[in-house]
Amino acid sequence: MVKLWQKKTRTDPDIEAFTAGDDPVLDLRLVPYDCAASAGHAKMLGRIGVLTADEVRLLTAELDAIAGLAKEGRFGIPREMEDCHTAIENRLTEKLGELGKKIHTGRSRNDQVLAALRLFCIDEAGRIRSAADALTAGLKSLSGRSGAVRIPGYTHTRKAMPSSIGMWAGGYAVALEEDARLLDFIRGRMDQSPLGTGAGYGVPLEVDRALAAKEAGFSAVQENPIAVQLSRGKFESTLVHALALFMLDANRMASDLIFFSMPEVGFVRLPEAFCTGSSIMPQKKNPDVLELVRAKYHAVLACQIQLQTTTAGLISGYHRDLQLTKKPLMEALDAAAASLAVLAKVVTGVEVDGAACAKALTEEVFAAERVYALVKQGVPFREAYRRVGKQYE
Amino acid sequence: MVKLWQKKTRTDPDIEAFTAGDDPVLDLRLVPYDCAASAGHAKMLGRIGVLTADEVRLLTAELDAIAGLAKEGRFGIPREMEDCHTAIENRLTEKLGELGKKIHTGRSRNDQVLAALRLFCIDEAGRIRSAADALTAGLKSLSGRSGAVRIPGYTHTRKAMPSSIGMWAGGYAVALEEDARLLDFIRGRMDQSPLGTGAGYGVPLEVDRALAAKEAGFSAVQENPIAVQLSRGKFESTLVHALALFMLDANRMASDLIFFSMPEVGFVRLPEAFCTGSSIMPQKKNPDVLELVRAKYHAVLACQIQLQTTTAGLISGYHRDLQLTKKPLMEALDAAAASLAVLAKVVTGVEVDGAACAKALTEEVFAAERVYALVKQGVPFREAYRRVGKQYE
Amino acid sequence: MVKLWQKKTRTDPDIEAFTAGDDPVLDLRLVPYDCAASAGHAKMLGRIGVLTADEVRLLTAELDAIAGLAKEGRFGIPREMEDCHTAIENRLTEKLGELGKKIHTGRSRNDQVLAALRLFCIDEAGRIRSAADALTAGLKSLSGRSGAVRIPGYTHTRKAMPSSIGMWAGGYAVALEEDARLLDFIRGRMDQSPLGTGAGYGVPLEVDRALAAKEAGFSAVQENPIAVQLSRGKFESTLVHALALFMLDANRMASDLIFFSMPEVGFVRLPEAFCTGSSIMPQKKNPDVLELVRAKYHAVLACQIQLQTTTAGLISGYHRDLQLTKKPLMEALDAAAASLAVLAKVVTGVEVDGAACAKALTEEVFAAERVYALVKQGVPFREAYRRVGKQYE
Amino acid sequence: MVKLWQKKTRTDPDIEAFTAGDDPVLDLRLVPYDCAASAGHAKMLGRIGVLTADEVRLLTAELDAIAGLAKEGRFGIPREMEDCHTAIENRLTEKLGELGKKIHTGRSRNDQVLAALRLFCIDEAGRIRSAADALTAGLKSLSGRSGAVRIPGYTHTRKAMPSSIGMWAGGYAVALEEDARLLDFIRGRMDQSPLGTGAGYGVPLEVDRALAAKEAGFSAVQENPIAVQLSRGKFESTLVHALALFMLDANRMASDLIFFSMPEVGFVRLPEAFCTGSSIMPQKKNPDVLELVRAKYHAVLACQIQLQTTTAGLISGYHRDLQLTKKPLMEALDAAAASLAVLAKVVTGVEVDGAACAKALTEEVFAAERVYALVKQGVPFREAYRRVGKQYE
Repeated sequence: MVKLWQKKTRTDPDIEAFTAGDDPVLDLRLVPYDCAASAGHAKMLGRIGVLTADEVRLLTAELDAIAGLAKEGRFGIPREMEDCHTAIENRLTEKLGELGKKIHTGRSRNDQVLAALRLFCIDEAGRIRSAADALTAGLKSLSGRSGAVRIPGYTHTRKAMPSSIGMWAGGYAVALEEDARLLDFIRGRMDQSPLGTGAGYGVPLEVDRALAAKEAGFSAVQENPIAVQLSRGKFESTLVHALALFMLDANRMASDLIFFSMPEVGFVRLPEAFCTGSSIMPQKKNPDVLELVRAKYHAVLACQIQLQTTTAGLISGYHRDLQLTKKPLMEALDAAAASLAVLAKVVTGVEVDGAACAKALTEEVFAAERVYALVKQGVPFREAYRRVGKQYE
Repeated sequence: MVKLWQKKTRTDPDIEAFTAGDDPVLDLRLVPYDCAASAGHAKMLGRIGVLTADEVRLLTAELDAIAGLAKEGRFGIPREMEDCHTAIENRLTEKLGELGKKIHTGRSRNDQVLAALRLFCIDEAGRIRSAADALTAGLKSLSGRSGAVRIPGYTHTRKAMPSSIGMWAGGYAVALEEDARLLDFIRGRMDQSPLGTGAGYGVPLEVDRALAAKEAGFSAVQENPIAVQLSRGKFESTLVHALALFMLDANRMASDLIFFSMPEVGFVRLPEAFCTGSSIMPQKKNPDVLELVRAKYHAVLACQIQLQTTTAGLISGYHRDLQLTKKPLMEALDAAAASLAVLAKVVTGVEVDGAACAKALTEEVFAAERVYALVKQGVPFREAYRRVGKQYE
Repeated sequence: MVKLWQKKTRTDPDIEAFTAGDDPVLDLRLVPYDCAASAGHAKMLGRIGVLTADEVRLLTAELDAIAGLAKEGRFGIPREMEDCHTAIENRLTEKLGELGKKIHTGRSRNDQVLAALRLFCIDEAGRIRSAADALTAGLKSLSGRSGAVRIPGYTHTRKAMPSSIGMWAGGYAVALEEDARLLDFIRGRMDQSPLGTGAGYGVPLEVDRALAAKEAGFSAVQENPIAVQLSRGKFESTLVHALALFMLDANRMASDLIFFSMPEVGFVRLPEAFCTGSSIMPQKKNPDVLELVRAKYHAVLACQIQLQTTTAGLISGYHRDLQLTKKPLMEALDAAAASLAVLAKVVTGVEVDGAACAKALTEEVFAAERVYALVKQGVPFREAYRRVGKQYE
Repeated sequence: MVKLWQKKTRTDPDIEAFTAGDDPVLDLRLVPYDCAASAGHAKMLGRIGVLTADEVRLLTAELDAIAGLAKEGRFGIPREMEDCHTAIENRLTEKLGELGKKIHTGRSRNDQVLAALRLFCIDEAGRIRSAADALTAGLKSLSGRSGAVRIPGYTHTRKAMPSSIGMWAGGYAVALEEDARLLDFIRGRMDQSPLGTGAGYGVPLEVDRALAAKEAGFSAVQENPIAVQLSRGKFESTLVHALALFMLDANRMASDLIFFSMPEVGFVRLPEAFCTGSSIMPQKKNPDVLELVRAKYHAVLACQIQLQTTTAGLISGYHRDLQLTKKPLMEALDAAAASLAVLAKVVTGVEVDGAACAKALTEEVFAAERVYALVKQGVPFREAYRRVGKQYE
């Protein structure tokens, strides 16, 4: 056997290559999660008497071995096997003979993919959480160092009223923490087991879904098989939406730092080791790293949009279209994790130029304060505004 | 006074018209929310001694009157006043003289807009919740009537395994309930008062933010003014993302119902009163209503994307770009509310054709069951699969 | 008769309201174009003997009258009539009795909508062309006034090498001209008549498509009825893509002008009549108009995306989903036309501050020139780069 | 030398890895195009006396060798070299010593990247053109075989009026040909040389831009350096928009074929070698290949959107954000080329089931024809419609 659905008629090789697509590469990351879900499934099969205790032991040991190989980058997915699920089952059969073929009892590739993807997402959400926490920590360290330094706050890209490095860093820290709470909520939503829903309409076997869920590492069971299928693409899109929120904060933080570090503004300096040069202009010290963080937002957003459009208009139940949700999911996760990490480094390394900040606090930044000084003397606000405003006519 | 920021130099009328944009129309919906927030702000000003108790009474009474007019559609926003905030303050001044001008003490249009928008969103989230609940109820009533009717479940738009009307309706009910939980989470996130953050850097006056928040109807205060500004566009985009999830369910439910009601499939019949005809083909009974629900998903998604792109690349602090977030927010809310409501009606009225469903349960739908019958007799799954599969080669 | 497809069973009023949607409002703009297409169709019916010459005269005269009313804003579309096509035909029947009912011979609402929309788009493309040309003219006038003024060119938001107002304005003029050529190309593509393709599969009558096309004002006939239907949403999306290109230029021009007019940079001054103020900070002169142009890009882009997603996944042939393509089309056209027009005004009015520009040409802007001075003396480029670069280490 | 802009301070390795990103992989495809552009540049330097004829010969020979290696997959880009431009120049220096360093005279990495990308796009547009032509040929062959077979045409996913395989295939052929004309137009637009515009503000050397353009293989020179920079991201987005149009046709053709090959409809049969099976249901013959074509549309659309959002809000002149335009460009090209090719294969292999088509032509498909039979007997259209319609009430 090679494919899980192998037929007599050989599939056209061009079509085979097209349908396998990027799966042989992308699925490498899913191997440990499929192994975990498969082990949970095997244990459940043991409990309901489809497998003996020995068989369960053999299968789970081999699944552990495969997961171990995968983590070391030593488990390959041959192109003709299409995906990790086929490669894992083939490996089980190669090592354990007929026993390997029994593990697919009571499941379909559909619930198998879903289980692996959800476990993957739950783990990755943790990775993003850590990266975001590191960035928040970087902002707090910046506040600790230079929080009291006053800078002009801008509106409309024009000086407005006094702000401070601490207010600035604190604002982003709050934004990130709010995003993190949404991420946690979404992670919780994904933590439901699809195991036992088969191809989307259940399996004609008395499986113990609660047990499989628990053994695979899920906190709950998602009962309705159609709800399970409806979640594909949709759960991913919400997770990537949460990433897009983090990335929007990162985009705007990067925009601020590019602006603040312009010589014309000068509130902060990027360490030279963070800057890149030009092949023609020897004077250049460019904030490429921040520009790329800024741009990565759009990459993540594009992934989210792809996830949100791919399933639209499809009737319920599985369609192969869903295969194309893996790549934008993984790309968005990687882009977000890398961007948050590198931004944490920048925020931690950035130096505040106190003298430049002080010089930038020109008198008009205090116009609103002068209005309120009059208000405190009893002048009605609108009248005070008019009086101070005369100076700027 | 006409504008809150009126200057000596008259603004160019073309530019004035361009900058006001759709606000005079869109803001009509915000009037009651600005009145509520303004009343909260006035009460706070009373507490800190900027206004007397009588002044607070007069102002809040007039704000109540304005909100009442607005709800009856009798409060207009003249184009030259730009937005509801200006129109409301002008009305206060017209009715209460100098007192009307005092209410802007300790605030800026920025925190005022934010407060009104958040209160509006909180209310609208409730409206969406109700519409979704009605749809869920419709699904449950359909299940109650015809839940036991078996139909073929489809994968790849091909018959797969047995499903049922109840499994189908239940799947969507679960999906909608999960969306509703996300909506509630997001509503909670928006329930933080921006009042007292002024133009994004606080106000030079000792305002009591907690009190203003409570009086305006918020559950909490969002402390950091920069975090408040960073939320604009972002909070809205997440709310609209939640709408897009509901709408994706609606899109797919509509796709299913269009498919199920095709004469070639025939599981359900749309009542004639739900169908539309053709101007050239007299036989036609078209599911236009379902097609429009399907298409509205893309309208909501476009709104979400606009909200997610508008603020990207902007430095922190207010920019006028944010004005353009109002329209996609409101359009998405209206599209979602209307679609969920009309779909609830369709789901409630749809008739299941039991005979057609039974006829559609052709033998191949039971192939997997036959495989499992063999498995139960001790045949290994892969072998059983091969045996049953022979018939279809 | 009220609807073109009126049946015995009364449509549910909620569903009727939902399906009519915004058409009664949006379609007001299509009335003159439907009249033109209908007149072309009527003339063709005259030629093939379905109508007498007198009937044709009566119909075209009344269609002219309707178009005239519409241009004056005096032709209404009652909500129960759904759309302009129904309202026009009802008016013809009201005025001309049974004759009014004959005009629908040999057509369907589908080819009728398509004809009106294409004629509308062709006209609107002309309006956009004019607005873009006005902006190009504004750029050329700016170049005429101040083209020779040198400014630092920026890369990475950092000073790079010498540029000039003329190079800047000229760059955008070229970009706009290239966009205009694409717009012309797309306009040409839309200039094909759908008349005679009925509901998407032709009409069972020997119509003279070439004649109807010519009389309606089209340059060509689009022969294949399925190709005609496939174009809906798609033609519009390409037109709006062309608008998005103009708007991207506008977005970046606005971004430049916001940057150039920052006091910290100061290359240009926006006349006070183009600026707006703040309700709390009396000193503020904000470039709101430019910020809104910048933001409108995202509104147009969202329209394009909606147009590109709405038809995906639909089988060929008409679906009611297509109705929702009208609004993003019209909104994008209006946003682009208004933005280009207001930007033309800004570009024409902006003042270049020669002294500030000169002051900004600090020595590092000439570093690459110094490198090349060495190159001209025979120093290899990489060596020259290193020598000049030493100064900036 | 390693980097083209190497400085004294070593860049932080994390930041270096982040900024290099995917370039070392993606750029492999650009190597032959950079070699062509570099050779053009070298010849121009020869003409203006910066290089001797011998030096030009040595450089172009080595560039040819590099291009040859790249085409065989034997030219690598070490990660520390960031991109192909650096790797090529390092190779030239390694092979030719000091001479290798001279080639960067009179250019910057910016115009170098642009030249390579444009030449790449021009070539790729040709590849897409061929794939589209093959699909059109497939459609014509289908028409040749079975064009006369009548099928019901559908509107609203309901049978409407008679169509035919020939009308269907012909409709898509027209659509593809129209897309191809737009592609050609856009290819023409990209065929302008950026060489000599340096980092976006020209180079301080008297280069002969027309000659460099001609030698590099461009048909024209794009004069204004700022226009050149404004094109980045924008040109690519328009090219990908053209791909999205092809892919929308492909998406809808795939949707049609999935529908037509449903057993319930049955107009066509997909050869078994084009189908895939299920791991749980032995009866399944699934149209995965068509589903993936359908889904790839959304992948291409996401690329287009990323290209359209990445540059928004940036001031003119180069920013590193632009680096992220390469990946969506290449992914969209690959997805479109592969999808069109595989669809050509499917269309060529699909079998029309004449009996099923005939059976599907049920009487209501001819209702409009019956209306027109009455019209030809002199009954006014609306009356004829009513008479025939009675039967369906």
